[in-house]
Amino acid sequence: MTSTTTAIRGTFFDFVDDPWKHVGNEEVAARFVRDGLLVIENGRVKDFGPFAELSRRYSNVPVTHIRNRLIMPGFIDGHIHFPQTRVLGLYGAQLLDWLQKWIFPEEEKFSNRDYARTAAGHFFDNLLAGGTTTCQAFTTSSPVSTEEFFDEATRRNVRVIAGLTGIDRFAPANSLIGADDFYHESARLIERYHRQGRNLYAITPRFAVGCTSEMMERCRQLKQEHDDCWINTHISENPSELRVARECYPDCHDYTGAHEKHGLLGPKFTAGHGVWLSNDEFRRFAKAGAAIAFCPMSNLFLGSGLFRLGRATDPDHRVRLALGCDMGGGNAFSLVRVLEEAYKVGMCNNTMLDGSVNPREQDVAEAERNKLSPYRAFYLATLGGAHALYLDDLLGNFEPGKEADFVALDWNAGQGAMPWHQSLVLSGPGPETMDQAAQLLFGIMAVGDDRSVDETWVAGKRLYKKNAAAPVAPVAYPRELLPDAATLVGASV
Amino acid sequence: MTSTTTAIRGTFFDFVDDPWKHVGNEEVAARFVRDGLLVIENGRVKDFGPFAELSRRYSNVPVTHIRNRLIMPGFIDGHIHFPQTRVLGLYGAQLLDWLQKWIFPEEEKFSNRDYARTAAGHFFDNLLAGGTTTCQAFTTSSPVSTEEFFDEATRRNVRVIAGLTGIDRFAPANSLIGADDFYHESARLIERYHRQGRNLYAITPRFAVGCTSEMMERCRQLKQEHDDCWINTHISENPSELRVARECYPDCHDYTGAHEKHGLLGPKFTAGHGVWLSNDEFRRFAKAGAAIAFCPMSNLFLGSGLFRLGRATDPDHRVRLALGCDMGGGNAFSLVRVLEEAYKVGMCNNTMLDGSVNPREQDVAEAERNKLSPYRAFYLATLGGAHALYLDDLLGNFEPGKEADFVALDWNAGQGAMPWHQSLVLSGPGPETMDQAAQLLFGIMAVGDDRSVDETWVAGKRLYKKNAAAPVAPVAYPRELLPDAATLVGASV
Repeated sequence: MTSTTTAIRGTFFDFVDDPWKHVGNEEVAARFVRDGLLVIENGRVKDFGPFAELSRRYSNVPVTHIRNRLIMPGFIDGHIHFPQTRVLGLYGAQLLDWLQKWIFPEEEKFSNRDYARTAAGHFFDNLLAGGTTTCQAFTTSSPVSTEEFFDEATRRNVRVIAGLTGIDRFAPANSLIGADDFYHESARLIERYHRQGRNLYAITPRFAVGCTSEMMERCRQLKQEHDDCWINTHISENPSELRVARECYPDCHDYTGAHEKHGLLGPKFTAGHGVWLSNDEFRRFAKAGAAIAFCPMSNLFLGSGLFRLGRATDPDHRVRLALGCDMGGGNAFSLVRVLEEAYKVGMCNNTMLDGSVNPREQDVAEAERNKLSPYRAFYLATLGGAHALYLDDLLGNFEPGKEADFVALDWNAGQGAMPWHQSLVLSGPGPETMDQAAQLLFGIMAVGDDRSVDETWVAGKRLYKKNAAAPVAPVAYPRELLPDAATLVGASV
Repeated sequence: MTSTTTAIRGTFFDFVDDPWKHVGNEEVAARFVRDGLLVIENGRVKDFGPFAELSRRYSNVPVTHIRNRLIMPGFIDGHIHFPQTRVLGLYGAQLLDWLQKWIFPEEEKFSNRDYARTAAGHFFDNLLAGGTTTCQAFTTSSPVSTEEFFDEATRRNVRVIAGLTGIDRFAPANSLIGADDFYHESARLIERYHRQGRNLYAITPRFAVGCTSEMMERCRQLKQEHDDCWINTHISENPSELRVARECYPDCHDYTGAHEKHGLLGPKFTAGHGVWLSNDEFRRFAKAGAAIAFCPMSNLFLGSGLFRLGRATDPDHRVRLALGCDMGGGNAFSLVRVLEEAYKVGMCNNTMLDGSVNPREQDVAEAERNKLSPYRAFYLATLGGAHALYLDDLLGNFEPGKEADFVALDWNAGQGAMPWHQSLVLSGPGPETMDQAAQLLFGIMAVGDDRSVDETWVAGKRLYKKNAAAPVAPVAYPRELLPDAATLVGASV
């Protein structure tokens, strides 16, 4: 046993399959270990199982016992905007106006390195406080913002996907980057960051509306030259945007067609939102192995609409789905809050499809798939997100070999009503069955929030503890004493 | 100056008019006093104005200075269910199924006096922690629950409206009460509680679907015999419910007609939800002076639909509107959270009406009225709610003579992202202009939650302080040392 081996004892809950595949029997997709042991070596899971079985085998390993908590894989956020950290939840506008009024002016500040670095500190503090251990993030059209994002992620050793964010029309001049500059800077940043430490690179055309065909072609070229990279963008968020998209791509039948035309739709491609995608577009996403990041909190906040969750999970054309908080269009970092809003979107869809509003639109099976049970919900936030983003070889559950990112959830935390509410479920001090654990998890997503996350661990190290003496995530070392991140990265090249 | 006179110094924000009357100029409906003094005598506002003006006149009055907070009138919740305190946010069903599966079994427990009393403690603790100082509440069909509700309200000296909740069909036998029993028990409870201390009584037919015509007639009789009482019910929440209502009242043209037929629609009548009311029904509500409690958090959680806020605020047919958390269909007590969801409902409506989805449904003015500015939002939570419930002679702003219920809001509290977010607005330590204050308030409703409420004062006494040593609202005296509430009430008869 080397000295880098440690273990966590506690109550564990994770997933081994997609609960939507098991309607009426969802628990077969989950795994509950009431008294378990997670053995960690060099930041990865070495072993996982019941404490009674494993403890003898690892009797020399130091054990941290996390009591009265549900331990789950760290949450995975498929769609978030680093440079909107300060402007989350701003007033009064739908997508296109909101971008012009609030977002572009703030994002321009991120060409200033000090500002971007300060923001990166806030960003990861808030991310970890919400239990999110991996995100796929937009930066800005300034490479400075992309560098500061990756550098801060490197300092915290968090697995992230991000990239320079390309937009060459429909924004103020300072928010734009030309297609050639975008190509060269992206190539440089891929070289510098992709697969350095836990960083992964996404070629990032912001959205097809804001990208000329020349920009989209440069994205195709980048993907051809760096096939291991991800692609991250937006699609079909808002009806007005949809109309502009059709005008911008008159030769494409629909919004998805703009991505197909430029060879982008495929594995490791993610588009945020997809609120207004047609059934045919869902089918092409499913067939291509492309993913949608479902962003209910943002879709409600910007009035974009109700994502058709039950349609996207049609078993014949199942689309890969991640959750996204889409902060700052989404008004919180917390994926627990996002699950609350996802549940609400699903329930509104359920009503629209049960035949009570319009009998001709009745689809009982699709209505049912819109119900976000705790199994479906926390699957999306963990293994489902990892699967959607093609990260499930690395992340998403406690399988040996995977990276040891996890959260400890306090089912009694949050608004004052929580403990008496959760006491309905429990017969002892903690959950004794998978069903009890699932009910507690629904309590967390319905009545909880970021306060439900008590601890966040990244690669086997605790980076966040609620109400710790330090108000922000405890980074192991004071930031000002660190070597410059570029040096750090350079050292590992 | 008698010894019961005290004063609060701080930064105040309240309303003197309805912001929807002042499109483009909403600030004329509000009042901002950067350094103000609120003079309180015997639980009522004696005087209010700038500190510089008033301090000399009240130089002998002891002053509590509440720094770095926005002080607003206490929040008013027009629709909440006391006996659902423990079961807020339960999984998986629309209205009618949810009632049968989760709600009726829980409510039956409230015929047990000890259980009801325990619940009443939790209920008011959570209410005050959310900054709500007045609510209009449903109880159950058991008089025990109504008594325990009023008794706890009496102990805390909180102004409430509530009543025995009548339902005589479509529920398990133990949840029902016959129309005659309902009549006699209601009359007894009116005698015992109405206008005793701060209690007000609402004749409460649960919803027309659950009430026979005989029950509805008994409600008419009660109102005729106790004209000073309120009436509280539900209407048009869910499409399936709507269909059943039409079957139950075949001689009524619509759901509102069931209330008109039995003489209930009029002043001091409130119906929760109204999601599926027709334009004509909105007009009849407006004309009758009846109110709707807008419950967006519940409407999303149960998938009921999107309340047409912009239609209800049509200036030609303006409906009186209160906010309701509708806990337990709503998954939180906090009206700050309810405002967040109200904003989202408004923005979704805005998109539906801007012509981008369907040009034939474009109504730019109605679309605009759906935008929940901070003025409109906090008006609804305070003076607007008081006006809707015919309490504006008693509550809703800081006018002299009104009851001194107020909250101190911490604009930096809540999720970790808050302070940097709010720093966008401020040039000094606190808001210096009404516009800055309004922007901070939007920050609170978009990014805050119950944590935004730092203190809650009722009739001039502080009943809640966040993170106080005692985890619950500090009642001035230990409950077990109190005289029995019935004795208390009896003493004031």
